Amino acid sequence: PAPQRTVLSSFVSSRNLVESAINSSPARLAILAFLLIVTLFTVLLMLPAASSNGQSTPLHDALFTAVSAVCVTGLTVVSTADHWSFFGQAVILLGIFIGGLGTLTLASILALVVSKKLGVRGKLIAQEAMNSGNRLGEVGSLLRIVISVSLVAEAIIALWLFVRFLTLGETPAQAAWHGVFYAISTFNNAGFTPHSDGLIPYEFDLWILVPIMLGGFVGSLGFPVMLVLIKKGLVFRTWNLHAKLTVQMSLLLLVVGAILWGLMEWDNVKTIGTLSTPDKIVHALFASVMSRSLGFNLVDMNAMTSDTMLLTDMLMFAGGGSASTAGGIKVTTIAVMFLAILAEARGDEDVKVYGRTIPPGAMRVAISVIVMGGTIVAVGTLLLLRISHESLDRVLFEVISAFATCGLSTGLSGELPAEGKYVLTILMFFGRVGTVTLAAALALRERRTLYHFPEERPIIG
Amino acid sequence: PAPQRTVLSSFVSSRNLVESAINSSPARLAILAFLLIVTLFTVLLMLPAASSNGQSTPLHDALFTAVSAVCVTGLTVVSTADHWSFFGQAVILLGIFIGGLGTLTLASILALVVSKKLGVRGKLIAQEAMNSGNRLGEVGSLLRIVISVSLVAEAIIALWLFVRFLTLGETPAQAAWHGVFYAISTFNNAGFTPHSDGLIPYEFDLWILVPIMLGGFVGSLGFPVMLVLIKKGLVFRTWNLHAKLTVQMSLLLLVVGAILWGLMEWDNVKTIGTLSTPDKIVHALFASVMSRSLGFNLVDMNAMTSDTMLLTDMLMFAGGGSASTAGGIKVTTIAVMFLAILAEARGDEDVKVYGRTIPPGAMRVAISVIVMGGTIVAVGTLLLLRISHESLDRVLFEVISAFATCGLSTGLSGELPAEGKYVLTILMFFGRVGTVTLAAALALRERRTLYHFPEERPIIG
Ligand SMILES: [K+]
Ligand SMILES: [K+]
Repeated sequence: PAPQRTVLSSFVSSRNLVESAINSSPARLAILAFLLIVTLFTVLLMLPAASSNGQSTPLHDALFTAVSAVCVTGLTVVSTADHWSFFGQAVILLGIFIGGLGTLTLASILALVVSKKLGVRGKLIAQEAMNSGNRLGEVGSLLRIVISVSLVAEAIIALWLFVRFLTLGETPAQAAWHGVFYAISTFNNAGFTPHSDGLIPYEFDLWILVPIMLGGFVGSLGFPVMLVLIKKGLVFRTWNLHAKLTVQMSLLLLVVGAILWGLMEWDNVKTIGTLSTPDKIVHALFASVMSRSLGFNLVDMNAMTSDTMLLTDMLMFAGGGSASTAGGIKVTTIAVMFLAILAEARGDEDVKVYGRTIPPGAMRVAISVIVMGGTIVAVGTLLLLRISHESLDRVLFEVISAFATCGLSTGLSGELPAEGKYVLTILMFFGRVGTVTLAAALALRERRTLYHFPEERPIIG
Repeated sequence: PAPQRTVLSSFVSSRNLVESAINSSPARLAILAFLLIVTLFTVLLMLPAASSNGQSTPLHDALFTAVSAVCVTGLTVVSTADHWSFFGQAVILLGIFIGGLGTLTLASILALVVSKKLGVRGKLIAQEAMNSGNRLGEVGSLLRIVISVSLVAEAIIALWLFVRFLTLGETPAQAAWHGVFYAISTFNNAGFTPHSDGLIPYEFDLWILVPIMLGGFVGSLGFPVMLVLIKKGLVFRTWNLHAKLTVQMSLLLLVVGAILWGLMEWDNVKTIGTLSTPDKIVHALFASVMSRSLGFNLVDMNAMTSDTMLLTDMLMFAGGGSASTAGGIKVTTIAVMFLAILAEARGDEDVKVYGRTIPPGAMRVAISVIVMGGTIVAVGTLLLLRISHESLDRVLFEVISAFATCGLSTGLSGELPAEGKYVLTILMFFGRVGTVTLAAALALRERRTLYHFPEERPIIG
């Protein structure tokens, strides 16, 4: 029975290893997992079979595409439809699928670990669904829920689009491929498209635009909010604070973004100036949803006015919900900062909302995330201005799109030399893994101080 | 004795009126005072006698120049040397002088009121110098100190420059006028220049550049820090927290700004590319000091690379010390935010530095100031992009220069239509009065909460 014990104990100890890795530094684990997946997909995309001309793709383009897919960004340096073979496109789609699941799972695990450590009120994840006693069991059931929710949502979108593409005259095989590709790309907020013109040929086709907008918006709310919606329905009062803040802020940004975008582009003949009013409104709504993270476009980004580009920069930077496939600094981060400023303006000691106090620690995490995001964007912009000698409008747009894993593009990515592509690659990676892990790592470090220094207040402002 | 009593009591009641105005809403009083001064100087500058061609200057140009002078910004829509008569230039100089004193006095009073209300440790202003029992006495002695320190500093700079301009061949009258103009413009961080080419003819003249850099740097530290320096000398250990943070952060920004500016422009033949290494270093140092608030320039802002422009944007936005004539969001605001993030990264409950705890309220004020600054800049940029159809590089630069009352310019101010000038005028006014009064108003509103809601923490990042 000696060898048996060894097998058993090594099995147990490897379980313990994974569990202790999750417990000791979940943030580090997340970064490591993403690095491994990215490396694998880079190798796959460098295979000659992945490109349509049968030649190996250079490292910087393969790495860029792998990171863009796994981090569900959607920026491209080569045309997805033209450069890659069917195998290559399938690799990209698999990258999006795994990257999307990985993002949801890891972010959810991190949120779970944080909420356990800090004894957070209001269940963030349906914890009762995973009361399996140990962490590995929890991770397993979390992954199961994430996969089933994703697959159901993607199947609905895929079926809908399949039928539509069929009626538009595609062959069943084509329609199925396009339906599945858009469904996965949409629900994971990836923004990759299998058509060389993207969605532009369908710019008046509500049968295609509406499911994509809806799927992208729901996907951008994040997994914890989706679970609340599934369990509690639309009874706002019964939601936890996180769901309330996320949905409210998402809708607010959606509406304000659409109104401003529409007003700014209303008379621009290069974009929507010549369209009918209903079409203008649809385009504005679509642009607002897409800017927040999905990254499909109906108009040429270079044709937008400078002020619309700046507005889009802001919407991209804001991003979507926590533990979603959307990027950016996340809407709850903005909500918490906004509420803190409101409390300050009212002179309140506590940051209060919906009969709850938001702990000061959460506020400090929010500020750290915002400042980190701003710093990464600033450094990335400085570097890329230097490398590309392009205008600030275009550089800032591409940098924020990469950092916020949005994928809207003026086409700058493809024009850059290799070192510029590496800069954007790093921005996409940091944007995807950085904010999430930073926020979790910070929240997990919080501890009580045993002794206090006397207070002294510098003059501010 | 009846009339006598009336005079006496009305005198007393008017004193009470002023005192109660200061006590009840010092922020509102500050805004009102600046509006009055600006109106007066606009009227003066619209007089035909103020312009060199004897014609009345249009409202938008006169208002812009008055606000630029009183808010010690230094942006111009017409050439100070060519458009204005000697009388007009004297009005501008008086505007700078009064605006500078007003800024220092009001900001110091606000800091004083805040520190009294909150019972702040570590004297912010040399309060013992003004123990006159009531607020009006305090204001009087504060004003006395501000004026005497300013006059002494300005006299030193003026004398130095007077001698230098004499040796350069100017007549005594010219040299005196230029010396006095530059001294007041420098120490108040105003950046107006009586020469049509500004300081460019003196770009290798250290006898002129060094006193201007030193004067501007000391002026940008702020009045509370100057008082500490005067009383305690250079013994860092004995300074209060505000002085420590201000001087440290100012030096850090100065050095980092100079190094980055120098590296970015090193090979740019349109700016410093053709100069000797020592001259390059002087230019980089000068540019770093000037970007933070003074606003003189030795190179054409349009000739700088895009990345240098963005770096300058950041330095301008940061600005100088609190209760100084420098603008921006202020260095202590940045220091407090930075320390809060550092504490968060360490997992500390308290924000600690130099054996002191910075109260959470101060952190919230800092964040409010930063977000307000960012919002004003964003809205101003969107508006001006729309009005001017210019590139983001130039628009952002001019907007931040106005908001941070820096005065560096790509020349966009002068090219704008009237409504664009009004936008910049409002930005200068908000930049000057907004951050200071907002910070004070917020700090004064702080109150203890009597009941607390249960805590609930949304997911962040
Ligand atoms: K995306
Ligand atoms: K200035």
